Amino acid sequence: MNAQALLQHLALSARFSATKMTKVDCFRSARLLVGLNCFEPGQEQKVHAHPGADKFYFVVSGKARFIVGAETHEASAGDLVLAPEGVPHGVERALERTIVLVGIAPPPPA
Amino acid sequence: MNAQALLQHLALSARFSATKMTKVDCFRSARLLVGLNCFEPGQEQKVHAHPGADKFYFVVSGKARFIVGAETHEASAGDLVLAPEGVPHGVERALERTIVLVGIAPPPPA
Repeated sequence: MNAQALLQHLALSARFSATKMTKVDCFRSARLLVGLNCFEPGQEQKVHAHPGADKFYFVVSGKARFIVGAETHEASAGDLVLAPEGVPHGVERALERTIVLVGIAPPPPA
Repeated sequence: MNAQALLQHLALSARFSATKMTKVDCFRSARLLVGLNCFEPGQEQKVHAHPGADKFYFVVSGKARFIVGAETHEASAGDLVLAPEGVPHGVERALERTIVLVGIAPPPPA
């Protein structure tokens, strides 16, 4: 996939691994990172935080349990999960094969 | 809807108008604007540009014809359309009732 193609069919961009959550870049600039987090059932993303950066997750397909600050939310296709600047967040566990669109501004250091 | 709720079911957030495309804010900070653009069939968003701001559209549901720079793309649910800094973009026409998740970094002046 051309990571900067102006039209991207995300179901074709998704990549999965049997061992851990897989990240795919869709767009990256100094101001904005857009990508996919792809989970097989049972996979996780450890809780972390981005100082100075706002982030969101949008569940494209599947279902997962998200942690944001002190909250835990089960989110499925069509749900938006927000992690404002500095708020710890992660994915406790994917309940199905799950594709999440992620946006971060500004991107964390590479 | 609480515009800053950390979990948002976007199908419930969408708002439509018979007269023109409707915008809904989901999250707004100095670094990132996340919202919805909601189109009835036939509605449009005029071509415009955001100097210094990167933007993406993600089609949550429906189908529409997007303009990005010199390109026109028909995009439907699951498709990502990118409008990097300064590139003129818009929606020529929604072909169905369409919900688009929009992210802009940084947000344009209010």
